[in-house]
Amino acid sequence: MNSTTTAAEMAAGISRRDIRFLVHDWLEVERLTEHPRFADQSRELYDEVLELSERIAAERFAPHNAKADANEPQVGDDGTVQLIPEVAVAVKAFGDAGLIGTAIDERVGGMQLPHSVGVASCAFFHAANPATMSYLGLTIGAANLLLAHGSDEQLETWVRPMVEGRYLGTMCLSETQAGSSLADLSTRAVRQPDGTYRLFGSKMWISAGDHELAENIVHMVIAKVPGGPPGVKGIGLFVVPRFLVNEDGDVGERNDIVLAGLNHKMGMRGTVNAVLGFGEGVHKPGGDAGAVGYLVGEEQHGLAYMFHMMNEERIGVGVMAAGIGYAGYTKSLRYARERLQGRAPGQKDPTTPQVPIIEHADVRRMLLAQKAYVEGGLALVLYASKLVDEQAVAGDEEARKRVSLLLEVLTPIAKAWPSKWCLEANNLAIQVLGGYGYAREYGVEQHYRDNRLNSIHEGTNGIQALDLLGRKVAMHGGAGFAALLEEINLAISEARSAGGERGALAEQLAAAVARLDGVTRLVLSQRDPQLMLANASAYLDAAGHIVIAWLWLKQFAVASRTTGDFSSGKQQAARFFFAQQLPEALIWLNLVESLDTSALDMRDAWF
Amino acid sequence: MNSTTTAAEMAAGISRRDIRFLVHDWLEVERLTEHPRFADQSRELYDEVLELSERIAAERFAPHNAKADANEPQVGDDGTVQLIPEVAVAVKAFGDAGLIGTAIDERVGGMQLPHSVGVASCAFFHAANPATMSYLGLTIGAANLLLAHGSDEQLETWVRPMVEGRYLGTMCLSETQAGSSLADLSTRAVRQPDGTYRLFGSKMWISAGDHELAENIVHMVIAKVPGGPPGVKGIGLFVVPRFLVNEDGDVGERNDIVLAGLNHKMGMRGTVNAVLGFGEGVHKPGGDAGAVGYLVGEEQHGLAYMFHMMNEERIGVGVMAAGIGYAGYTKSLRYARERLQGRAPGQKDPTTPQVPIIEHADVRRMLLAQKAYVEGGLALVLYASKLVDEQAVAGDEEARKRVSLLLEVLTPIAKAWPSKWCLEANNLAIQVLGGYGYAREYGVEQHYRDNRLNSIHEGTNGIQALDLLGRKVAMHGGAGFAALLEEINLAISEARSAGGERGALAEQLAAAVARLDGVTRLVLSQRDPQLMLANASAYLDAAGHIVIAWLWLKQFAVASRTTGDFSSGKQQAARFFFAQQLPEALIWLNLVESLDTSALDMRDAWF
Repeated sequence: MNSTTTAAEMAAGISRRDIRFLVHDWLEVERLTEHPRFADQSRELYDEVLELSERIAAERFAPHNAKADANEPQVGDDGTVQLIPEVAVAVKAFGDAGLIGTAIDERVGGMQLPHSVGVASCAFFHAANPATMSYLGLTIGAANLLLAHGSDEQLETWVRPMVEGRYLGTMCLSETQAGSSLADLSTRAVRQPDGTYRLFGSKMWISAGDHELAENIVHMVIAKVPGGPPGVKGIGLFVVPRFLVNEDGDVGERNDIVLAGLNHKMGMRGTVNAVLGFGEGVHKPGGDAGAVGYLVGEEQHGLAYMFHMMNEERIGVGVMAAGIGYAGYTKSLRYARERLQGRAPGQKDPTTPQVPIIEHADVRRMLLAQKAYVEGGLALVLYASKLVDEQAVAGDEEARKRVSLLLEVLTPIAKAWPSKWCLEANNLAIQVLGGYGYAREYGVEQHYRDNRLNSIHEGTNGIQALDLLGRKVAMHGGAGFAALLEEINLAISEARSAGGERGALAEQLAAAVARLDGVTRLVLSQRDPQLMLANASAYLDAAGHIVIAWLWLKQFAVASRTTGDFSSGKQQAARFFFAQQLPEALIWLNLVESLDTSALDMRDAWF
Repeated sequence: MNSTTTAAEMAAGISRRDIRFLVHDWLEVERLTEHPRFADQSRELYDEVLELSERIAAERFAPHNAKADANEPQVGDDGTVQLIPEVAVAVKAFGDAGLIGTAIDERVGGMQLPHSVGVASCAFFHAANPATMSYLGLTIGAANLLLAHGSDEQLETWVRPMVEGRYLGTMCLSETQAGSSLADLSTRAVRQPDGTYRLFGSKMWISAGDHELAENIVHMVIAKVPGGPPGVKGIGLFVVPRFLVNEDGDVGERNDIVLAGLNHKMGMRGTVNAVLGFGEGVHKPGGDAGAVGYLVGEEQHGLAYMFHMMNEERIGVGVMAAGIGYAGYTKSLRYARERLQGRAPGQKDPTTPQVPIIEHADVRRMLLAQKAYVEGGLALVLYASKLVDEQAVAGDEEARKRVSLLLEVLTPIAKAWPSKWCLEANNLAIQVLGGYGYAREYGVEQHYRDNRLNSIHEGTNGIQALDLLGRKVAMHGGAGFAALLEEINLAISEARSAGGERGALAEQLAAAVARLDGVTRLVLSQRDPQLMLANASAYLDAAGHIVIAWLWLKQFAVASRTTGDFSSGKQQAARFFFAQQLPEALIWLNLVESLDTSALDMRDAWF
């Protein structure tokens, strides 16, 4: 078959050709090699890493995706977490290939490739097996957090072994009483005379929190230092390893961290999710109770540091959501091409053969919507990660600042939009398969369950909405939002010049952007924060759809340069998104503009 | 707490007060007692049945909902299906209370209450435990099917024991190669000299297909009679019992039906879902292979008979979807009232106490949306079931015909709208609980998984869309659709007369209805069926939202007669639906009107 997305093209659950299109034809990532940070690199190198990623994802990750879902982590008789053996094999293959360090600095052993290439690499793994990928994604995040804020000694002690795949990482933020409200956490970090700290408290929802997959686990933990200011200002960030490390770099004594229990989730069941107890005195490093921790940076900036990681993790959530969405799309596409059922409208003769269900318009609609969502979501997270690269190579501080603000504005969208709409893609994949989609044997329902996490963790989508409307669009006098509008208007101008169908799409987008701009100004002029934020979620949805439409316009432009099935498919997905999705954004903007208070005015007692 | 939905008010997962409001204050079901069919009945009797239903649902169904999900049916060493014991206890309690026969004719042992009371009764059970309720819902459906088309002897032999709760029923339609396309089924029913039939073939996705919960299982099976016409016309309907029944009514020899396997599903795991083999010769009733079946009615009308049951089942799907949606709503409401997290916007002092999350506007939005969806969905299915009652008591044929057509038009909406939007309610319930919502221990993720079935079975929502736009709105010269518009316009007129806020809502609805009418005419004028039906799903969505808005306008009117928290809550939900949901319908109608072909034009090779 000469079509775009053949079985071979999507062995890991994501189209190789689409990745190439986005990374090379659209984002032109190889241009980054003009800058010193990426000198000596080449498109060929990037392709090698992407091909390696796809192969490992297809061979080592995808085959146990369903098995890990059906065989959740268990606590064995010896108190250790038991995983199916395929997880360790996959994690080792990823580490051995050097993929933890794809986008990490050479100074700690990484390949120092562009972040956008790293994200494209990760997308294959999220599509193949997001639960196993989580062990690695968290490690990459922990390593980057320390790279940004840790001391040279911390880089050598903790980051280098993570890049080598010998240690894995976690992020310990939530507590039972403090999920979204981190100001209210109660884990304490008590300063010791030798400059280290001892941690006491309990952490909840810790993905990859305990396992035997690595020599050590590097927990990045936020905790309050007694005597510090109340609220978020009193929070420090600490490295709290599962095992202490001797001066010669060998793993030594067990730290005072215990596995207090496992959480059982709707999906992502292959990722162990733990309640961890710190400082319960079960292990006594150096003879004393308390989990030994090492301060990162300064005591009162822990949450700010963690948010550095969180912003990266939020784009990572978008990558994961797009990857899982993509996997469902390719599965349902394959099914729709093979499954024979029914006949064309008007064909009443029951003796004629049945047709593949892809021939039914409504099935094609569900496939095309998935394509628009997952390829749109992937484009968004790759674009955002390319901004990370552009920050790194910016010619001057002003240019860097502009890219940074643009990234700040896009981050809540890059987290929330794929986690909502690529989940909807998974929902449509189930629907395409019908009863088979509802059966666990076919795997698409697992994609939905796995993906359902993404609108919850790393800040719920409601919190992303508050972040966007309550903070990001107004920050620095609206400079980030202005930069976003400039970028969108640039694409509109180019499309207008090109004219034709692309020009018509640009007119439609221009009208939506003008509405977004006007409504944003109106809402920001509200003095009452409750009223201003009452419909923040609708604002986030609208901004997200407009951003995705902009990126589809850009994909349309690149696709128009060539002909063929792939190019036709890209253009048709863009047409579909503009015709069937973008109009929704205007309705949501109407709602935001109306300052509707129907939810705000509702009272507890009326429910 | 003086609020509307307290814990005691929703013990079974659904608000008792809301049921009373809908059944009595709005639908005024007791007026049916003016007709001979329901004479000697009373509001008190209806309330007794509803209270009994709620109590059994709360005491016998809800407690094992999660346990049945976590302990799927297994095939034991003896080949029988093993369920957790609580299922049998619950099924027996339901049967002993006479609830299978709530709305079934007295002539076969039922209570002969209005169908709307029966649906309200069932709603409690679907909210408490839809998987266990399925055994009973299918039995009610099978009994009604035979009541409509079976012989007197069949009523005595099969229906009476079902009403007594001794036998349970199933519906056997799908085959591996024939899911949505029933014309292509291959199970054969071979006529025997004694007038019975022998069935050979395999049936797929049979809910409640095999178990030990009852003395017998009455399978309602569609099959082709060899020599008949091709396609749907060659299909007959057969009673095929698990055990043959002797002339004295005792259960006798095993029929030639075997359990070929169990399906494992995303949700509804407590309902055994079987592949059944008919006529494989494992059992040989009377010494011969072949499953003994008894023809219902005439040979070539089987599918028409089955669709009688299917229409009822489709409303039943809506009831189930609304019930499950409601259960998630009440759970997330309880959580939002208890969970302390964060502070009001503008409150920066971290030493102030945290607030219950219901204080956050976006959480209230998610709760109010759920309320609008689940109470709207419940109103719809109760309204539809009241139409069934009105058919039964219609004064003349013309009136009966009009009600019948109205019901026909509403059926695809009553199936599809709750299965889409009450599922979305479950999605929002997960989001309200955040990480806890994603954890299996809290049960809301199960509601989502259970409810996900409803847009698939009994005709996918895509098929409902084809049914509505391709058949129902045009049938009998558009008489059913005209009747619907008349009913909506009647409510609009009354609301206009009342004026004030109700009048303003009416104006908004009037505009939407006018658009629906105009777009419907335009689309029906298309000659090309492909083009006409290209955006049938958007049409169904739009028609559904307009119908629900109409029903919310009616609820608003009834609620306005009184004051208090409950009444305020109803009015606020109506305001919310009109402000935040109804505008979406206009966007969908724009799409339908545009005859957009972006999905229709997409080609297989472009994906």
